[in-house]
Amino acid sequence: MSKYEDFKNSIQKIADVGFASAVLGWDQETYMPPKGAEFRSRQLATLAGIAHGMFTEPTLEKQIRELAADKTLGVKEAKNVELTLEELDKQKKYSSDFVEEMSRSVSACFSGWNEAREKNDFKVFSSSLEKLIDLKKKECELLGYTEHPYNALLDQYEKKLTVKDVDVLFNQVRAELVPFVKKIFAAKQVNDDFFYQQYDKQKQWDFGIEILKQMGYDFEAGRQDVSAHPFTTNFNARDVRVTTRTSENNLSEMLWSCIHEGGHALYEQGLPAEEYGLPLSEAVSLGIHESQSRLWENNVGRSLAYWKNNFPRIQQIFPEQLKSVSAEQFYFAMNKVEPSLIRTNADELTYHFHIMIRYEIEKLLLEEKIKVAELPEIWNAKYKEYLNIDVPDARQGVLQDVHWSHGSLGYFPTYSIGSFYAAQFFAQAEKQINGLKNQIEKGELKNLLNFLREKVHKHGKMYSAQALCEQISGEKLNFTYFMNYAKEKYGKIYNL
Amino acid sequence: MSKYEDFKNSIQKIADVGFASAVLGWDQETYMPPKGAEFRSRQLATLAGIAHGMFTEPTLEKQIRELAADKTLGVKEAKNVELTLEELDKQKKYSSDFVEEMSRSVSACFSGWNEAREKNDFKVFSSSLEKLIDLKKKECELLGYTEHPYNALLDQYEKKLTVKDVDVLFNQVRAELVPFVKKIFAAKQVNDDFFYQQYDKQKQWDFGIEILKQMGYDFEAGRQDVSAHPFTTNFNARDVRVTTRTSENNLSEMLWSCIHEGGHALYEQGLPAEEYGLPLSEAVSLGIHESQSRLWENNVGRSLAYWKNNFPRIQQIFPEQLKSVSAEQFYFAMNKVEPSLIRTNADELTYHFHIMIRYEIEKLLLEEKIKVAELPEIWNAKYKEYLNIDVPDARQGVLQDVHWSHGSLGYFPTYSIGSFYAAQFFAQAEKQINGLKNQIEKGELKNLLNFLREKVHKHGKMYSAQALCEQISGEKLNFTYFMNYAKEKYGKIYNL
Repeated sequence: MSKYEDFKNSIQKIADVGFASAVLGWDQETYMPPKGAEFRSRQLATLAGIAHGMFTEPTLEKQIRELAADKTLGVKEAKNVELTLEELDKQKKYSSDFVEEMSRSVSACFSGWNEAREKNDFKVFSSSLEKLIDLKKKECELLGYTEHPYNALLDQYEKKLTVKDVDVLFNQVRAELVPFVKKIFAAKQVNDDFFYQQYDKQKQWDFGIEILKQMGYDFEAGRQDVSAHPFTTNFNARDVRVTTRTSENNLSEMLWSCIHEGGHALYEQGLPAEEYGLPLSEAVSLGIHESQSRLWENNVGRSLAYWKNNFPRIQQIFPEQLKSVSAEQFYFAMNKVEPSLIRTNADELTYHFHIMIRYEIEKLLLEEKIKVAELPEIWNAKYKEYLNIDVPDARQGVLQDVHWSHGSLGYFPTYSIGSFYAAQFFAQAEKQINGLKNQIEKGELKNLLNFLREKVHKHGKMYSAQALCEQISGEKLNFTYFMNYAKEKYGKIYNL
Repeated sequence: MSKYEDFKNSIQKIADVGFASAVLGWDQETYMPPKGAEFRSRQLATLAGIAHGMFTEPTLEKQIRELAADKTLGVKEAKNVELTLEELDKQKKYSSDFVEEMSRSVSACFSGWNEAREKNDFKVFSSSLEKLIDLKKKECELLGYTEHPYNALLDQYEKKLTVKDVDVLFNQVRAELVPFVKKIFAAKQVNDDFFYQQYDKQKQWDFGIEILKQMGYDFEAGRQDVSAHPFTTNFNARDVRVTTRTSENNLSEMLWSCIHEGGHALYEQGLPAEEYGLPLSEAVSLGIHESQSRLWENNVGRSLAYWKNNFPRIQQIFPEQLKSVSAEQFYFAMNKVEPSLIRTNADELTYHFHIMIRYEIEKLLLEEKIKVAELPEIWNAKYKEYLNIDVPDARQGVLQDVHWSHGSLGYFPTYSIGSFYAAQFFAQAEKQINGLKNQIEKGELKNLLNFLREKVHKHGKMYSAQALCEQISGEKLNFTYFMNYAKEKYGKIYNL
């Protein structure tokens, strides 16, 4: 066996363990009976320990370093080695003591968060979060950074993303999107009452399956199940699963989670299976991943063209509920812009205000300009400032997201970045695919999927997010695309 | 940490990996999309390799041997160490070359079996089975045995069981059960036509859930799903899952698989969770496991008392189909004894003829008295001899069971032994539980479950199958219990 084959074999075995964990995780969220939880968490911990041990094993490291110096490798092989070494060097910065302390702290913080939510009382959770934030600061030091400690955290989810980049983006949001949304708030509001009637859950489910099939999601290489929080997971490119939830009194719950997760899943199904377990079989970054879900959810799924085709179908399924609604009214309703308390229910414009608030708070925490105990107060002030909305309690405020209790600081910005990438990529798709809008109006989404397959999916981690963006659009991430999309679309909806 | 705690920790980590494999296996049979199969099998192989590596690791072996010599351990601790050492000594008899060769041979043989079934042609499978049988003979030599090589294989599923023991049992089957069944064949046959009407699948499913709950199966620590072949699996005592299948045109399919798997699952749910991963948290043997499923399926589930309570309920669910059927007729129908081709569909009496045929053939193979190529001929001759039935083709004959293609020789006898244990244990339950029949007639099954919990489940592997049997019934496995049960029950049904 060649040295590269040997390396590949070792890395793929580590991936096997990681994917086994992913199966256990999927099961935990979908089918596991409640009493199974205790032993499941120890099974997951053991697998994580085994994978970490396999990865940091000295023989493997020697092998990787030798291969990294080997100039005879092909481009793909060299990229797999380069990215693996990069990851190894990162992993080695953590002592196992630190990993264990972090893991314990996250567990404590997560339980604390759950209890705090139940009691609707931030204080319950405050001290464990404080400890976790202290550890995250330590982590920044371990990982190293230039300019701002937050850069070390951002880099974990979106490689090379810096505070400077995010500040530029959010300054544009403040300068352009905030005043635009103010105009919308002042305009005549659209009606979305009909979304909140009784909709049979099974019928919603069946329609969701139809929609996924129409998008090109391969049910021979995936499936949809129910979970409390929708997610996408994969155990290889040929087993990519989505989950959704349905609400009997809210049609939009299932609809957008279905299309959103479907977008993530199409990315995973399009990654090269022959690179199983290696970096080239993995998504570029969280931002690029989110660009795929957002492109399908917003640019496609919330467009009038899309519902020209699909509205007659959903009207047929729910004739009573939708009898006096037109495709255009349906489209208006799903794009209602309004101030809201909960990020995950926000429209696609104010959504970024929610992200900006979290980003600003995270930065302040890392700069030690605010204390954890002050979070509720600061949170509420920012919601007043950006959304002119009063937060009635912690559950609908600072306690709504799980991320901080997981130690996932630096994660939120990738949601906004994903939407901005989506707008930029979709603008290119419109340019490069002849009659795309026309195709969408007929429910023909194959050319769009092929565009994404060719431009994004098939490359795995071959190119950085920045390089990929330039390849697709000829320029770096540029907020203008999103802003133009927003003005064009919402200008019409709100008659601005 | 004490040495024992250290040992326990290592063994439990190995169990974590094993249970992770079990989750992947469960998923494979229930929800995995078809294209996921290829990578799933490599994930399972990697986990198996990791678990084997962890178990045969020299530091652990040293630790186990030291503990095995430690006279200060408590009884339970000492038993866990003793049984772990025994298993380790067995595992060490296999070279990794042999394990790999066996694994490849099983894969080839299993594909061969599938193809042979599809083509309904034994020859397709013959040469790969021959190779596998040769390997099994080698395995007997590696493991060592006294008197008969088959003893090495029997011992793997039912510790200390020998050809001599099985011969004694099957001689009794031949001497007593065979003539008794002949009398039944000559008697007036019961009618079971009404089982083969159209029965709504969902209603069957719901009734199956009711039945499991009535048995005491804990749905907070388990669940039921659909699979092609019903099975029970567990990831710890608090996550024990069953599967079933339903046929729209055959009520009995779901009914018996549900009760049978439920019996297996009650055993697993009753094993001591605090011994997680250690031998004391495991079932004694396949025979004892089967005794639990058979006791519920046959001694309870096919009794008139049981249906006195449950028939009115099922009649209520299927009023059209069962309107002119009485509880007694229902009971007669489910106990119809007739010659049949397929083991898994056989009644509880002729079932043992199917097992005996397989046992005799396995023994002949290991004694090298027959060749693999002759199997169809010998199979058909034995079905003619014991069941006076002509086998029309290989699919309904020698190709019906998966076991040989898995290399599971020595497995079949545990099915019969399980039924015989069940009769012996149930006879004791009837003696020791006041008014048991009366309780069953009212659907009160709690005392029976508690009896099994106390006598069997809670002990895990603390006692051998033989010792357990003596503790429960004061004597060794005795076929007479089964024969008495058969005579009493079927004498009445067939007016003998």
